[in-house]
Amino acid sequence: MSTVRVKSIEGGGVSTPAGFRAAGVACGIKPSGALDLSLVASAASASAAAVFTTNLAVAAPVVVSRENVERSGGRAQAVVINSGCANACTGLDGMEHARAMADLTSSALGCTSREVLVASTGVIGVKLDMAKARRGISDAARQLSATGGAAAARAIMTTDPFPKEAAIEATTGGGTFRVGGMAKGSGMIEPRMATMLGVVTTDAAVEPEVLQRALAMVVSDTFNAISVDGECSTNDCVFVLANGRSGVVVTESELAGLVSALRGVCEPLAVGIVRGGEGATKLITIRVAGAVSAQDARMAARAIANSPLVKTAVHGGDPNWGRLIAVAGRSGAAFSLNGASVRIGPVLLFANGTPFDDRAPEAAEYLRSREIDIEVDLGTGGSGRSHMWTCDLSAEYVRINAEYRT
Amino acid sequence: MSTVRVKSIEGGGVSTPAGFRAAGVACGIKPSGALDLSLVASAASASAAAVFTTNLAVAAPVVVSRENVERSGGRAQAVVINSGCANACTGLDGMEHARAMADLTSSALGCTSREVLVASTGVIGVKLDMAKARRGISDAARQLSATGGAAAARAIMTTDPFPKEAAIEATTGGGTFRVGGMAKGSGMIEPRMATMLGVVTTDAAVEPEVLQRALAMVVSDTFNAISVDGECSTNDCVFVLANGRSGVVVTESELAGLVSALRGVCEPLAVGIVRGGEGATKLITIRVAGAVSAQDARMAARAIANSPLVKTAVHGGDPNWGRLIAVAGRSGAAFSLNGASVRIGPVLLFANGTPFDDRAPEAAEYLRSREIDIEVDLGTGGSGRSHMWTCDLSAEYVRINAEYRT
Repeated sequence: MSTVRVKSIEGGGVSTPAGFRAAGVACGIKPSGALDLSLVASAASASAAAVFTTNLAVAAPVVVSRENVERSGGRAQAVVINSGCANACTGLDGMEHARAMADLTSSALGCTSREVLVASTGVIGVKLDMAKARRGISDAARQLSATGGAAAARAIMTTDPFPKEAAIEATTGGGTFRVGGMAKGSGMIEPRMATMLGVVTTDAAVEPEVLQRALAMVVSDTFNAISVDGECSTNDCVFVLANGRSGVVVTESELAGLVSALRGVCEPLAVGIVRGGEGATKLITIRVAGAVSAQDARMAARAIANSPLVKTAVHGGDPNWGRLIAVAGRSGAAFSLNGASVRIGPVLLFANGTPFDDRAPEAAEYLRSREIDIEVDLGTGGSGRSHMWTCDLSAEYVRINAEYRT
Repeated sequence: MSTVRVKSIEGGGVSTPAGFRAAGVACGIKPSGALDLSLVASAASASAAAVFTTNLAVAAPVVVSRENVERSGGRAQAVVINSGCANACTGLDGMEHARAMADLTSSALGCTSREVLVASTGVIGVKLDMAKARRGISDAARQLSATGGAAAARAIMTTDPFPKEAAIEATTGGGTFRVGGMAKGSGMIEPRMATMLGVVTTDAAVEPEVLQRALAMVVSDTFNAISVDGECSTNDCVFVLANGRSGVVVTESELAGLVSALRGVCEPLAVGIVRGGEGATKLITIRVAGAVSAQDARMAARAIANSPLVKTAVHGGDPNWGRLIAVAGRSGAAFSLNGASVRIGPVLLFANGTPFDDRAPEAAEYLRSREIDIEVDLGTGGSGRSHMWTCDLSAEYVRINAEYRT
């Protein structure tokens, strides 16, 4: 497994791995009539792992899914997701509704309720219309198919400008298995929208504990390494289901290979969320080196990725290295000005305490592209490195989020 | 002193307290020809206290002022400040230039160099033109006057839309003394501008240690309780000089009264910085209660004050309580959703897990005003409280900071 070979599957998604079906239907939760209920089902009980939002204002479906994955001992057979309503800040009714979604799905598929993971995304503080959700679950269960991944990926969108899907084939000494996935998210961000969701499937056979460890490692470098506006929603979660249908068994000793395979799906999904960030016109990759630890590097990368000054400068094509130095210096990470350096694309703009302002026009030219690489060395001489993906901050972001909605 | 009475002095500033003179001159550092060198001088050596930026990328004048206040044992006779050039990221030359500013000022005024505090604000990464600074210091020393505070306040501006000045008269059992001050700052923010500066003067007699303690307490509730965009510059500092000319002696036992007096000047200066924030159209006061500690309350207030979603919602007049709950929940502060509540102005929008969306139009009407109060209770039942002042996030902020400048 350590010599895993990962190959992208064009057009693949959450129903690409063997033994997974999916569907996306419209049941009326979104007033527009767009797809708003998504179902992903495994042919049999699968190992399951999940990571949830760290927000203490947590939505009902997050509470229910966390309970279910614990009670089932890391097993799940289906994931049901509605968009258009976050079922967050909805009190005891909200808890009942989230449990009812699991119950209805388990009845339709013939599994136990605790083997159903539930998620919701959309407006906060509004109750779910259970008559609509019931019809949606029933319709989706009938429409499940091995080609349903695309509809499922559309049915979890809120303000996302495009669906996010990915799939890969991983070849190891033990054979070939597949990983597929879908995600949504467009910032925190739509007025009262509650945001990032991801569902990953694989036909590898993996014990729940190993799957959970692999997911945590992958999420740290992918979904947790993106920022549109530094916000963290009440509903974020990423689920992975492993049903073993490929016949390839992945054990703990092959964790690194499993992580590579999962990353092959999670990284394009995470980067897709940033590309589709509200008002975004540029994808920015921030790389931080020369930190005393990887945590310090991530802290600095995160501060830069969330800095409105950096994001507006990139938006305007301004190679403003002074802002990068100022943010790195206040990030909380250890920092040494004399050893620090800043590179925008291929252009070194500041090093050893010396600015190279004559190179600014070259850097400005580079900033006209849609994909921007920024490298900051914190100058401590340490070997800590990390990265973050973010997008620029545009007047369009302000327009979208300032729009009066009551 | 605990029964101190504080009365605002209309039109007062940094040269209002007895024995202080000030001047602001144009010496050509700003290409526009605007005022760019400011000098504040005490008739005799004064007790001095200072707080500096916590940014690790620290500008040369900050290093020099920190050294001087240490070496002099908390004494100073003058503060010299140039605008238009931050003297940050300028290497050894920058250190020499900052020291030369202190030397030139000490020669002009007949005090020691270590009794001069130095600050710079403006473009990062550009060297100070010392010929211009020399002329400016010489002109300013000749023009020092008891009515020079207004020019001094103008000479420290960068992108500030208006000068920030304040003065008060404090009456205590021991007599009456005055406090005056000036500040600048408009966000972090102007491309490569390095930002917040404050100078406070008083004719009370205060020992340096007591003055430093009082300043730290006041700054925590005033200059450290404001945010325009969550950035922290390479040059921030606040100085206070106490020359004793009023004859009123303030001892350690009267710390609370001294803090009240200093707050009478620092609070309007700090709020003035937010009012003049780049692109700002509204002043927002965030009050957080129901926290387990004051630190937790401040953490939540700061997260709300820096949230682009909250700031755009207020800009757009959207009473979006869901965003306030989501930010409070992710702020790192202890939080209980069931006990939490949100009030926008007089309108309670969420409490005990229940939204009151029928009140949204009333809250939207309130949000049309220029000064907005927001109260969030974290629901823990604790008595921790704190506040922050911030401004809205407008498309104008993006325009200003995205403008291409190379």
